[in-house]
Amino acid sequence: MKVRGLGEDRLLAQWLPALKQNSAVLTGPGDDCAVVRTRGSDNLLLLKTDCVVENVHFTSTTRATDVGWKAMARPLSDFAAMSGLPRFALITFIVPPDTSLRWTKDFYRGLAKAAHEFDVAIVGGETSGTAGPISVAVSVAGEVEQERCVLRSGGKQGDDLFVTGRLGGSNPRRHLLFMPRIRESRWLTSNFDVHAMIDLSDGLGADLPRLAHASGLAFEVDEESLPRHRGCTIEQAINDGEDYELLFAVTAATTRSLMSRWQRKFPNVPLARIGRLTRKSKFKNREWHGYDHFQKRG
Amino acid sequence: MKVRGLGEDRLLAQWLPALKQNSAVLTGPGDDCAVVRTRGSDNLLLLKTDCVVENVHFTSTTRATDVGWKAMARPLSDFAAMSGLPRFALITFIVPPDTSLRWTKDFYRGLAKAAHEFDVAIVGGETSGTAGPISVAVSVAGEVEQERCVLRSGGKQGDDLFVTGRLGGSNPRRHLLFMPRIRESRWLTSNFDVHAMIDLSDGLGADLPRLAHASGLAFEVDEESLPRHRGCTIEQAINDGEDYELLFAVTAATTRSLMSRWQRKFPNVPLARIGRLTRKSKFKNREWHGYDHFQKRG
Repeated sequence: MKVRGLGEDRLLAQWLPALKQNSAVLTGPGDDCAVVRTRGSDNLLLLKTDCVVENVHFTSTTRATDVGWKAMARPLSDFAAMSGLPRFALITFIVPPDTSLRWTKDFYRGLAKAAHEFDVAIVGGETSGTAGPISVAVSVAGEVEQERCVLRSGGKQGDDLFVTGRLGGSNPRRHLLFMPRIRESRWLTSNFDVHAMIDLSDGLGADLPRLAHASGLAFEVDEESLPRHRGCTIEQAINDGEDYELLFAVTAATTRSLMSRWQRKFPNVPLARIGRLTRKSKFKNREWHGYDHFQKRG
Repeated sequence: MKVRGLGEDRLLAQWLPALKQNSAVLTGPGDDCAVVRTRGSDNLLLLKTDCVVENVHFTSTTRATDVGWKAMARPLSDFAAMSGLPRFALITFIVPPDTSLRWTKDFYRGLAKAAHEFDVAIVGGETSGTAGPISVAVSVAGEVEQERCVLRSGGKQGDDLFVTGRLGGSNPRRHLLFMPRIRESRWLTSNFDVHAMIDLSDGLGADLPRLAHASGLAFEVDEESLPRHRGCTIEQAINDGEDYELLFAVTAATTRSLMSRWQRKFPNVPLARIGRLTRKSKFKNREWHGYDHFQKRG
């Protein structure tokens, strides 16, 4: 059997959980970042790797600075999902010999700009040649206070569900130049008790079921309430992916206060209540009702 | 200008030092691992990424378990060079869809075996498809006590230089199945004051000048004393690379005690005194005397 038959996304999912963890690992594969303890530190260490590959995540006509921004911003968005502070990045740069130096320079400028925006230091890297496409892995280490670390699994029955920003991808540069919601996430956990959170990288239709499943719950969504980019349909808002917005769950009693304080703090970032977490039942499966094709993404 | 003209190895070296670091970064790009501080911890955090690419670091006929072992062991060897303890690894697996699942399973078995050997937990990963060769990045986070962290730059004039194991690569599987010298390195720093250390990944002829240069010194080597694998010439011992042995510097007064205690502790791992660090002079350049072609590797 080939990787094609299994689906690339499920490849790591198949082997990683079988790997031996140790007592320092609080959350291994399966959440947005790994969460581990280090000796003598009160804070938790967060670790995340992500990659961009030519002709998968970008094309030869994509601006190199945009590719660099995206390569760094993707793992940073996972830090936002944990309410973590990214601090140090390592770059693995696999590059064919006929790549122009101008491209690499612009790429690094984009990487560095995203890193600088969030005070992340690029502390090392490795380069290799290849006969194939440009491939870049960005690994990030950071920190979070124990009491502010938010997993996917902490959602409670009856929690209200919120989405930041707008969903749906009609703009071709939006998936490149998004802003990781780290400031918003850090503000949330310093002011509210966020039970569960995830970043919307594969689309609400794939990521909401993941959060609900990790929390052992089902969900109800008011599809009319979904915040959409101009010109996007509801189906696009559910389906498109690469929104890099936050989806999170808080107790419903908090909703009114959260909405009003959010609007004062982040007047330019919409916050929408889109539904709630409900008791799991055999009549509600983990897939989005009516959107079974999402299953293939999972 | 293309990457080919600059040399892939020098690509990162060109951009990384210009990137903004911050006060938490004690050693950024340029040593075996990055060394950073995290809040509230006495220990230092070490970070390293490395990669293996098909047709660069292995071929389609290399055993998948050997590729997995090498992919993990390479960054672990960099931890040995800092006297660090590797603890957590992230895997970025970029794989064409026609790769067999059997290959990926065997590859992960090799990865996991090397990780288990040194109590490293594989805590996460990312997978992407590609139209090109298999490429794997392994990023490792770990720790070292402040007083036991060994850089390349701490060598002192008159220090004796030592090499572990044997050099020169006549055996085609040796560069795949090497054992990172973490136990040896940890023992060294718990018993001796190691001034400078590096792992021999590019060959003694490239890596010794790097250590000497970082320490602001020159070096003398007794080429007859170089520990060689059976059948290897002196030139091969200097030149071949991928030995993954340790090169380190200690004060000459320690040499007798070090040699006798080492032999009792590691009877199966040779330790050889190969030369010493000397004052830099304009008559001694940073390249190995008589081996100017190493310059291209640097």
